[in-house]
Parts: sequence; structure tokens; C-alpha cells
Amino acid sequence: MRGRLALIVGGARSGKSRRAEALALDWGGEPVYLATAEPFDDEMRERVAQHRADRQGRGWVTVEEPLDLPAALAREATAGRTVLVECLTTWVGNLMVHDRPVEPEIARLLAGLDQGLAADLVLVANEVGLGIVPENRMARAFRDHAGRLHQELAARAGRVELVVAGIPMTVKG
Amino acid sequence: MRGRLALIVGGARSGKSRRAEALALDWGGEPVYLATAEPFDDEMRERVAQHRADRQGRGWVTVEEPLDLPAALAREATAGRTVLVECLTTWVGNLMVHDRPVEPEIARLLAGLDQGLAADLVLVANEVGLGIVPENRMARAFRDHAGRLHQELAARAGRVELVVAGIPMTVKG
Amino acid sequence: MRGRLALIVGGARSGKSRRAEALALDWGGEPVYLATAEPFDDEMRERVAQHRADRQGRGWVTVEEPLDLPAALAREATAGRTVLVECLTTWVGNLMVHDRPVEPEIARLLAGLDQGLAADLVLVANEVGLGIVPENRMARAFRDHAGRLHQELAARAGRVELVVAGIPMTVKG
Repeated sequence: MRGRLALIVGGARSGKSRRAEALALDWGGEPVYLATAEPFDDEMRERVAQHRADRQGRGWVTVEEPLDLPAALAREATAGRTVLVECLTTWVGNLMVHDRPVEPEIARLLAGLDQGLAADLVLVANEVGLGIVPENRMARAFRDHAGRLHQELAARAGRVELVVAGIPMTVKG
Repeated sequence: MRGRLALIVGGARSGKSRRAEALALDWGGEPVYLATAEPFDDEMRERVAQHRADRQGRGWVTVEEPLDLPAALAREATAGRTVLVECLTTWVGNLMVHDRPVEPEIARLLAGLDQGLAADLVLVANEVGLGIVPENRMARAFRDHAGRLHQELAARAGRVELVVAGIPMTVKG
Repeated sequence: MRGRLALIVGGARSGKSRRAEALALDWGGEPVYLATAEPFDDEMRERVAQHRADRQGRGWVTVEEPLDLPAALAREATAGRTVLVECLTTWVGNLMVHDRPVEPEIARLLAGLDQGLAADLVLVANEVGLGIVPENRMARAFRDHAGRLHQELAARAGRVELVVAGIPMTVKG
């Protein structure tokens, strides 16, 4: 790792994205927003376009990559940039939906981080493991993959935060 | 805001209510318990009556308002009182069940807080966003409304706590 | 209580078990792993056997008790040992699945702790109350039992940690 690495964890509507944006801007560097969400209907496509335009107005470049996040990071995380990835957990879900092998892709992502990226990185992750065990088998597998990925990322991050009601709590750093 | 404002967040059976009661009593002022739960069967009605009697024995006045929380706060949060609202998240659920428009009601609540209430307020909220995305559309909407409300309240509160296994963790303040 | 007591709380795949093992080894004492999981198919039996062998290689004695945890603790938590219980929440689930009365068994467990055990104890618990209210009645009852148990244990523990993405946050101690 050459650049800084932060992991911002939170639940749904916890304010984790706003916090991650604030941290990325605070770190300086050219702000790049690496979006992993895959719009699956017109309403979502419209919302995504609106968000992209809003961010552009605030100085962000937006890049979209739902599946090959390791390659997107290798390409985008160049010197002088701060790359915000929103979000890691959605990426894991996308891999599952498209029947890609999850653990090898996670290993590729971690290998890329371990090799060192020039940019500072702010990674957003959705904590999904604090409810009742889901009855759905795929939801259980998703929870397992996401939890393991978050642990690996937190071990590598210099800063880990848990966002509760919009307020970041320091977990590490 | 003239009085103090605390937001106590926690999961189911986390001990958030007991913590909120302790904080309200610690703050002093005439303790008023503003309950938003709507008993939907005889068993629950009995339980609610029992809790009300228990609190009365410990010096609390109980007021019930499942829907028009902004009006109830304007009426009850008078000088010299400490009002505990139990709980905000249930109120959001009640609005949805009764087909009331949620965001306008949240805006009314926040406007009342911003205008300033004379009493100290301790608000209890149920964190529901840290599990798997629910398959039920209404549950997803509920989670979104609740999460946004919690963020707005936390931004205004001087003290925010996350209660874990009965122990309050300071999020803010 | 004569020995030390720690409660390690976390979600699914949060790294709580690894953290609990590290704390137990850090405390010293002969490490005993008291497993409550009940293997329900061949795949799980194989996984359990593998974990047991792994732990043995790292110096642990493994004891299994899915139901009578109070008796197992009374028997195993002897002077000079550090007993890790993995996990309390699974035990509550086992009691429910086997139609045992949960609250009396919890009371027995707490009575044993209050009487004092000679060993140091590290208890692992799964936080399951931070998602949407489950529609399943048994899941709701499970969540209630678990939440109440965690509160009782945290009140008695000298150290309580919430593990997020593999990193322990101090809740108490």
C-alpha cells in the first residue's frame, strides 16, 4: 500500500456515503467516485444519472464498474487522486448475481491493495451481519462473503469508522 | 432548540429504553414518558397498562400519541420537564401503517425541534438497518425513512449514544 | 465471580471468534473451548471436526455442550483455566429448537456466574437485534431472549467488546 486506505462501515441509510465523501474531500487529491451499483430499472438509472450530475457539480469524476473492481482500481487509483469506492458490499452482491466466483475475485482485489496503489482510497461497506440469520441461502452466503471481505479490508486500513445515525465512530485509527 | 436533546439508538432488547430512562432521570426535570406504541391486541394493551403503572410508581407521567408526535411534543415539552419519546422508529412505522405521508410528518417534527422546545428531550430510536436488505418493499421503505430521521435527529442532538448489551457507547457528545 | 469475565459481541462473520480466541490466549490459563454448536449434517460435522483439530494444534482442549451449558461451565471452569464459550446465542437457539424453557435455563446460567467460577471466561455472543423486525414469531422470541441474556452478561462482565470488521471496539472495561 502506498496511498492511504480508509474503510467506512455502516447500515442502510446510516449516512456512511456522506461521511465517506467528506473524508475523501478532506484528504484532498482529485476526487474520483468509483460506483459499483448496477441500475436494474429506469427509475434507478435516472437516480444514478442525477447523483452523477450532483457529484460532478461538486468536482467529482464518476467511474462505473459493477464487476471487475480489481481492474478498475488498478486503472483509476493513480497518483494524486482520492478514489471513493461505493460500495464494496454491492460489488460482492453483483458477483453473486452474475455467478462469478466471489472468493477468487476478493483475493484479486486484496492482491491489488497489497501490491500498493498510488491513490488514497476510501472504501464504503454495508454492514449486513447484525440481524437475524436470513432464511434465504444466498443471503447467508452473501453475508459471509461480505463479512470476510470487511475483515480483510479493515486489517489493511489505517482508518476504520462505523457510521451510526450519520456520526462516525472510530473503530481503528 | 432551547432544552437539551439526546438520541439513544439501539437494537431490539438492547437496553436502550432503560438507558434512556436513566439519562432522563439524571437530567432532572419532571419526567414525562411520551409513548408512541399502538397496542394492537389485548395482550399488548395489558402490557402497556402494566408498564404505565410501573412508571407511575417511579414518578413518571405517561402520555400516548401514536401519530401526531409533532403536536404532542409542542404540547408536552414545556419548561421544567424532561420528555422521553419511546420510540421514534415506532412512530415512523405507525405513520406507514395508517398511510400517512412520512416525510412531511418528519419535516414537521424537525421544524418543531428547530423552533425550540422548552423541555429537555430524550429520544429513543430503534436501529434497523444493519441486517440483510429485506425482501419486503414496505420494510425497505421503513428502513429508509427511519435511517434518514435518525441522521437528522443526531445532527441536532448534543448527545448520541449507541446501546450495546445494555451499555451505552458514546457516538457524539 | 472469582475469575475474570469478558463478553465479545459481534455480527455474523465479524471476526468475534478470532478476537475471543486472542483475548483468551492473552489472559493465559489452560485454554478450553466450550462449543455449543450442534452439527446437523455431515458437512457441518466435518467442519466442526476440522476446527477442533486446528484448535488442538494451537493448544486448545475442546468440549461440546449444546444444551446444558450451566452444568458444563460448573464442570469445566476450574482454577487455572480460561474457558471460551462459542457461542451463547447459539445455545439460546438450541434450547428453543429442543423446546426447553429458555428463561429458567438463562437464570441457571446467571446463578452459576453469580456464585463464582474459578476460571476466567470469555463469552462470545451474536448480535442479532439490529435488523428489521423478523416476520417469523420464533425469530422474534429468539431475538428477545438473546438480547436480554446479552444485557445480563454485560452487566456482570468486566470487559465488553463489539467487534466490527474484525476490530474490537471497547463497550465496557
